[in-house]
Amino acid sequence: MQFTAEQSALLCEILRWRRDVRHFRPDPVPETVLDQLRRTMEFAPSVGNARPWRVIRVRDNTLRAAVRAEFLRCNSLAAAEYDKATQTDYARLKLAGLDEAPEHLAVFTLTDPPEGRRLGRRTMPETLRQSTAMAIHTLWLTARAHNLGLGMVSILDPRRVEAIFDLPEGWEFSAYLCLGTPAFTDDMPLLHRSGWQESRQTIWEDR
Amino acid sequence: MQFTAEQSALLCEILRWRRDVRHFRPDPVPETVLDQLRRTMEFAPSVGNARPWRVIRVRDNTLRAAVRAEFLRCNSLAAAEYDKATQTDYARLKLAGLDEAPEHLAVFTLTDPPEGRRLGRRTMPETLRQSTAMAIHTLWLTARAHNLGLGMVSILDPRRVEAIFDLPEGWEFSAYLCLGTPAFTDDMPLLHRSGWQESRQTIWEDR
Repeated sequence: MQFTAEQSALLCEILRWRRDVRHFRPDPVPETVLDQLRRTMEFAPSVGNARPWRVIRVRDNTLRAAVRAEFLRCNSLAAAEYDKATQTDYARLKLAGLDEAPEHLAVFTLTDPPEGRRLGRRTMPETLRQSTAMAIHTLWLTARAHNLGLGMVSILDPRRVEAIFDLPEGWEFSAYLCLGTPAFTDDMPLLHRSGWQESRQTIWEDR
Repeated sequence: MQFTAEQSALLCEILRWRRDVRHFRPDPVPETVLDQLRRTMEFAPSVGNARPWRVIRVRDNTLRAAVRAEFLRCNSLAAAEYDKATQTDYARLKLAGLDEAPEHLAVFTLTDPPEGRRLGRRTMPETLRQSTAMAIHTLWLTARAHNLGLGMVSILDPRRVEAIFDLPEGWEFSAYLCLGTPAFTDDMPLLHRSGWQESRQTIWEDR
């Protein structure tokens, strides 16, 4: 299987137009599209082919409200750590689309799954979490290619999120995802555009 | 910016034909392609737009030999943990392309960069490592779309790899990557094909 220069350029465009979306339109995501997104996660790299990610599609309003309350609690503690001027800038940022996004996904990582038989993770158990991060990124890019937006919410206490869901043993919280139709598209990170943190070049150092 | 159904199907093909490559041909990777790969890492999601990944392109043979020795040490310890029958299966697997791959990249994560001003990582410092994992996945997919293969080596003690490289304060080892032309292409994980770990479906549980 060989790809053409035109095809690799298209991947670059999908990567370039992917954003951490916090502004959603309320339009529902069709079940067929959700199913396609779910299936592409299986193409993510995983240590020992263990596929340690677990996903809960959160539809229950009580669960959603509990996550939202936990986000508001953590966000207010985070804001309090900055000086007054920065607090004003921070308050202006919209850091989650929890209210508008039609779909919520809670993503977890198995801390010691039997799958993979520990191959590749003996000295680096971190590889299980890396696998989940790459599965989330797989979902993110696929959503973008379907003209959907995904936002990753991390302003949450992982132990408290685990307590909100009644989880099996060995599930560790990785991320809470908002999914839906983005209110606008952009090829520039919002935190760069808003002036919070400008985009810096990636340098490869030669040794 | 909107993508077509044909374009999202192409992304799916790139995802499907990406492999953790351990079998390389020795052909050099053109500098222009390496530069394109380096630049696409900037499109990876990162917490607070912090871009905490750092990459060392390892060209020095003494450094490469030290990493190879560390891999052999960890791989032999890993093998010793299995029962006799499994040890035979394990020994048959080729778990790294360190000898053949023309390019080696050592990837690290900054544990507390000033960039991003701690946004999004106060309760989850793990998000910095997730950002690096997604940057590696970005590189991986871009390499695949350029008909190159990438292999991620994690059978290494992260503290020992950090000691091999003379690193600035706050650099944490994330992964060691082999890059080059793959000896063959496949749309099935090698660990599934070899019978070590079959591929399992990703299930989204409704709540």
